[in-house]
Amino acid sequence: MNNTKQVLVKRPKGLPTADCWELQTEAIPSLEEGQMLIEQAYISLDPAMRGWMNDTRSYIPPVALGEVMRAGSVGKVIAAKGKTPFQEGDHVTGWGGVQTHVVTDGQGFFPIRPEWADLPHFIGSLGMPGMTAYFGILQEGQIQEGDTVLVSGAAGAVGSVVGQIAKIKGCTVIGIAGGAKKCDYLIHELGFDAAIDYKNENLKTSIKKHCPKGIDVYFDNVGGDTLDAALIFLRKKARVIICGAISQYNATDLQGPKNYLSLLVNRASMKGMVVLDYAAQYSQAMQDIAQWMASGQLKSKVDIYEGIEAFYPTFLRLFNGDKLGKLVLKI
Amino acid sequence: MNNTKQVLVKRPKGLPTADCWELQTEAIPSLEEGQMLIEQAYISLDPAMRGWMNDTRSYIPPVALGEVMRAGSVGKVIAAKGKTPFQEGDHVTGWGGVQTHVVTDGQGFFPIRPEWADLPHFIGSLGMPGMTAYFGILQEGQIQEGDTVLVSGAAGAVGSVVGQIAKIKGCTVIGIAGGAKKCDYLIHELGFDAAIDYKNENLKTSIKKHCPKGIDVYFDNVGGDTLDAALIFLRKKARVIICGAISQYNATDLQGPKNYLSLLVNRASMKGMVVLDYAAQYSQAMQDIAQWMASGQLKSKVDIYEGIEAFYPTFLRLFNGDKLGKLVLKI
Repeated sequence: MNNTKQVLVKRPKGLPTADCWELQTEAIPSLEEGQMLIEQAYISLDPAMRGWMNDTRSYIPPVALGEVMRAGSVGKVIAAKGKTPFQEGDHVTGWGGVQTHVVTDGQGFFPIRPEWADLPHFIGSLGMPGMTAYFGILQEGQIQEGDTVLVSGAAGAVGSVVGQIAKIKGCTVIGIAGGAKKCDYLIHELGFDAAIDYKNENLKTSIKKHCPKGIDVYFDNVGGDTLDAALIFLRKKARVIICGAISQYNATDLQGPKNYLSLLVNRASMKGMVVLDYAAQYSQAMQDIAQWMASGQLKSKVDIYEGIEAFYPTFLRLFNGDKLGKLVLKI
Repeated sequence: MNNTKQVLVKRPKGLPTADCWELQTEAIPSLEEGQMLIEQAYISLDPAMRGWMNDTRSYIPPVALGEVMRAGSVGKVIAAKGKTPFQEGDHVTGWGGVQTHVVTDGQGFFPIRPEWADLPHFIGSLGMPGMTAYFGILQEGQIQEGDTVLVSGAAGAVGSVVGQIAKIKGCTVIGIAGGAKKCDYLIHELGFDAAIDYKNENLKTSIKKHCPKGIDVYFDNVGGDTLDAALIFLRKKARVIICGAISQYNATDLQGPKNYLSLLVNRASMKGMVVLDYAAQYSQAMQDIAQWMASGQLKSKVDIYEGIEAFYPTFLRLFNGDKLGKLVLKI
């Protein structure tokens, strides 16, 4: 039996090229005492993966050259030897990486309840993106009923959950996304109050129009000009949550927020977050989100592509915007 | 009896030119019931004045064209008519503006205790700059004993008090200032642990050297490249306090902090502050600072220039760095 994997072999400059990874196939070794074999079902594609490819100090070490590309995943234990944390047939999620199979002692994996939702959701709204949204908007954003919340990357895996949680909590929610299709989705399927198509609208004009009282919370996934436009319209004591900056991940010359002095004038804060800090509270968040999904208050779309070989073209969709909802690779 | 005043007659682009103000002399009208005449002793020159000259939304309205230039001041009541909040002979501080005399009902002024310190200190360490430093480093910065605190504009009216309060609270304090004279002053007179001469040192190299564990609190008065260098060395959960950005006030093309994603990686925050929000707590802060000054734990230098006519060349010293300590104009 073989494992097929995408191995990082070259560090990118700017947008990664196909030759940054090499598809390798190896025989799966026989299990040792305490080991399990996981057959991966879905692999998560996230913008954060771009950061892990850089050889720089960050919140986790970079992926080493020669190592399988790091990624979240969901799968099933198909073999176990001796005393193991999970048993054959258990479904688990964790850092499975971009590969078809994982041999592991279980570290970095935890069990899921497949009766809660279809498997891909466990790397979407019930996985890291969902956790990021939940703790970002509730704990970092400290939203109150009646707040005006602006979200960029609003049709993405994190942004869509951020906006829906803010709606559940009684906020006015405006999403920024690229293209009419995504904007329609935000308003008509997810219940956002308004959507701004950054590809076809003037950001400043549209933010001003849809946030007449200004912005209480801006949840930023993109950085660049979008962050700068949002800063102009902050209200007093506004909170800007820096979750990501997809416009900057492939940039060779970084763009800082020129309008950051709006923080001063408005006594506002800009705060960075890393979801891993909230690991101890994931289970509560998962229960809440699962409940909202079950009751229809929170909708979750998954954009599925197939095959470990399709990793690179699918990965590119993170950056060219050609996707709707959580991007996953089905194995 | 006459009042001589500097009136704003033109809005600047970039660094203000002399013709932005006009020196005007007018007869002082006789007092009405409830009015006082204040003879101004010292006028405060602060970087924030540059911002008040712009016709843009900010934390207070801009100075109107034709209006006396806004400034803090300290002076003495030399006449009063009827029921007034202060009596002849009282010393007061407030928004006196750049003029020799003020006729007022007392709004925006409050009494001071001249026995506490020489008069100019009431617009320095015991005035707005001192209040800004006190609430900025203690309440916004939330410093803890053992924290590494980096301050820019460290030899200035705000920065010098920030650093000294942080020392009193048991922090390791590194100041950034321009020139050997200011750096010597920080270390040998104010007791800073280290000083970085940004005019003659590489900021990144020196910050790395003097903050080997990284920065817990960065108190920023300058923005630009200095802010960007500091961001690189933030520790986990660091607090960046945006008090000002003197490098940007005259800039026509603003420079945003390119390294702001350090906030994300380090779960750090960047927060703006305006001292006016703390008005209700000024008296406690003044007592603390006066006590520290009396005991010699906090030193305060005033750089005095003379004459209302000297306003413009003295104002320029705020931006060319040719001053040491709190800049004031003696009337």
